[in-house]
Amino acid sequence: MSTHYAKAKWEGTLKDGKGKMNFTGYDGPFNFKSRFEGGAETSPEELVGAANAGCFSMFLSALLTKKELTATSIETKATVELGEDNGPKITSILLECEAVVPGLSEEDFQELAAEAKAKCPISRLFTGTDITLKAKLVS
Amino acid sequence: MSTHYAKAKWEGTLKDGKGKMNFTGYDGPFNFKSRFEGGAETSPEELVGAANAGCFSMFLSALLTKKELTATSIETKATVELGEDNGPKITSILLECEAVVPGLSEEDFQELAAEAKAKCPISRLFTGTDITLKAKLVS
Repeated sequence: MSTHYAKAKWEGTLKDGKGKMNFTGYDGPFNFKSRFEGGAETSPEELVGAANAGCFSMFLSALLTKKELTATSIETKATVELGEDNGPKITSILLECEAVVPGLSEEDFQELAAEAKAKCPISRLFTGTDITLKAKLVS
Repeated sequence: MSTHYAKAKWEGTLKDGKGKMNFTGYDGPFNFKSRFEGGAETSPEELVGAANAGCFSMFLSALLTKKELTATSIETKATVELGEDNGPKITSILLECEAVVPGLSEEDFQELAAEAKAKCPISRLFTGTDITLKAKLVS
């Protein structure tokens, strides 16, 4: 259906080296500190969190569109844990969603949100971890 | 080891709505066109490609550091295919790496690059697709 490109570069050793990640409209740094020690820059983990939150939100909108409903807004926060399991591993992803959807019942919302979590292509890519969803319909 | 946060928002229907993805130092748009029809903006697929390329490059640097070698540069391009398999699915990721590493043999380089592809935590997260690596040691 579509092909997408991105790039990254690393220069130097693990701890003193510096990284860059690039995609359309973005060219930004990461390093050991931002990845493992809470440094000010970004990390691959933030990018996968943003991708999962973005894909989930868009997929939920698609499911609503099929039911002739329109989301005023779907906001999703991702929390990505980088832990250890025989080497570094993404041990969990939490998606916390708040949606404003006029005309939708709480029951239908929870069902559609669960379906979006399961079926969005980024969730289907991330089968190496557990993704947990907390979804809230707000008005 | 570390916790990472990101956010996304979708407003409106699937085709006419608009999305945003946010992480440290980035706040940018995506939409149906940029995801499925080659539009000018970004996509969750670009972010996962950048994350995989970044994580792989950093992990390869870590493996080199263990061998007391230092990468002058490790540059990796990711090509992410969004296809269809019972709904939208990331059908493949290609990582194309060019590295400058003084003092490293071609054979050792290929071995370490394959190890980095297999063990980097973003590859371990992306078990829902096939990741192919083409690695080249350049001088």
